[in-house]
Amino acid sequence: MNCILLPAANFLSASAQINTPTQIEHVNKVLGAQVGDTLKIGQLGGNLGTAVIDTMSVDKIQLREVNLNTASPPKLDVTVILALPRPKVLRRLIMDMTALGVRNIILINSYRTQKSYWQSPMLARLDEFVLEGLQQGVDTIAPIITLQKRFKPFVEDELASLITDRAIVAHPYTERSLANYLQHQSVSPALLEASNKTLPSVVCIGSEGGWIDYEIELLAAQGCQAVNIGSRILRTEAAVNVIMGQWLLHS
Amino acid sequence: MNCILLPAANFLSASAQINTPTQIEHVNKVLGAQVGDTLKIGQLGGNLGTAVIDTMSVDKIQLREVNLNTASPPKLDVTVILALPRPKVLRRLIMDMTALGVRNIILINSYRTQKSYWQSPMLARLDEFVLEGLQQGVDTIAPIITLQKRFKPFVEDELASLITDRAIVAHPYTERSLANYLQHQSVSPALLEASNKTLPSVVCIGSEGGWIDYEIELLAAQGCQAVNIGSRILRTEAAVNVIMGQWLLHS
Repeated sequence: MNCILLPAANFLSASAQINTPTQIEHVNKVLGAQVGDTLKIGQLGGNLGTAVIDTMSVDKIQLREVNLNTASPPKLDVTVILALPRPKVLRRLIMDMTALGVRNIILINSYRTQKSYWQSPMLARLDEFVLEGLQQGVDTIAPIITLQKRFKPFVEDELASLITDRAIVAHPYTERSLANYLQHQSVSPALLEASNKTLPSVVCIGSEGGWIDYEIELLAAQGCQAVNIGSRILRTEAAVNVIMGQWLLHS
Repeated sequence: MNCILLPAANFLSASAQINTPTQIEHVNKVLGAQVGDTLKIGQLGGNLGTAVIDTMSVDKIQLREVNLNTASPPKLDVTVILALPRPKVLRRLIMDMTALGVRNIILINSYRTQKSYWQSPMLARLDEFVLEGLQQGVDTIAPIITLQKRFKPFVEDELASLITDRAIVAHPYTERSLANYLQHQSVSPALLEASNKTLPSVVCIGSEGGWIDYEIELLAAQGCQAVNIGSRILRTEAAVNVIMGQWLLHS
């Protein structure tokens, strides 16, 4: 938690209050903060800034001198289409994509997504994971998360409208590498300067076991170029960070 | 587990045996494999390949037609110096760096490393995490892991000998970005082709809370350039994958 995000309702002119148990515990135990100390805070959907602790009790921390003077960092202009992963890793994946600044996240069904994943109680906790990711990444703007339980209708009827320029699908069993795909445009210094415009607008990432050939074909028919990130197979979380790291570093 | 790695002692001419409970469970429950099925296997420190299941019992799977004909993928020519993290995240960090193919890993003390971390029983399980990482990343060569409990003597007396060309230290609170640092050399197509030679040989990554200024100064005195990966603060695991992804994609 690198900043404490509060909803607009918790602010009143130059004061604010923290009343969420996890945030209060963080201020007490991790930060070890006391009355008079300055905290990094932000308003959900608004600005980042600081505030000074006015009073502290077991269930409420009152803040004064609230100063929200810093805009949240720009989002990454990308839609990540992720095959719904095991519930156990969903939290960290949502946290990481949020902290990285991904603007749109679509959790989609895939052949290798077990049906039970869609019944997981973790899916009801996405807002909580997003808040953790925002507080980790020091951002106030939540990504837009959509669930798509039917792969084929989504890909055939809706995907094309999301692809503003180019799209890729991560797939270990394909010839073309992501590095080659991205470098291809960056040899020209002019394009290099405009490299944020050359990054694909849509990235499809499978979960454990990846995509099956039929899915790759359906995605390719809509313009998604299959690219690999080398012969090494990474955990989904690791792959997401490796791939989206390109956006983080080059946007 | 994308391949099953066995020590040399488990091989006998064209046969081999699996006798580790976690591997037997994986073959049974995750792969649902049966007698006659082909498995992806590898010899620790040796080649990758396949074998056919000959017989299966509760505590042993006998393999025949062992064919180890594929060299393991090249390691990344880099030493990662990581501030010893919380025991809870140590497993995934070692797994991920191993799966990525990092050649050398040095776990080092830092100001923000709690003393108790060095007493963690997790430190006795590094070989286990490495095996998990190798089986995830489909590699047979373990990274060399070294523990350095004293930051200053290591940095002042040993670090310089590890830096074959350049070195970086990840630090959110510095002007220069990693992208700028790496792009600076890649504008020239000639250098671009030789881009694997332009990647630094040493990367220092802090853990939660990062490095303190004094540590950054000591590292800088030995030639480590501080670089940031943007204003967003990532979990240590995410940062490691974002940064090392540059090596994975450009080596």
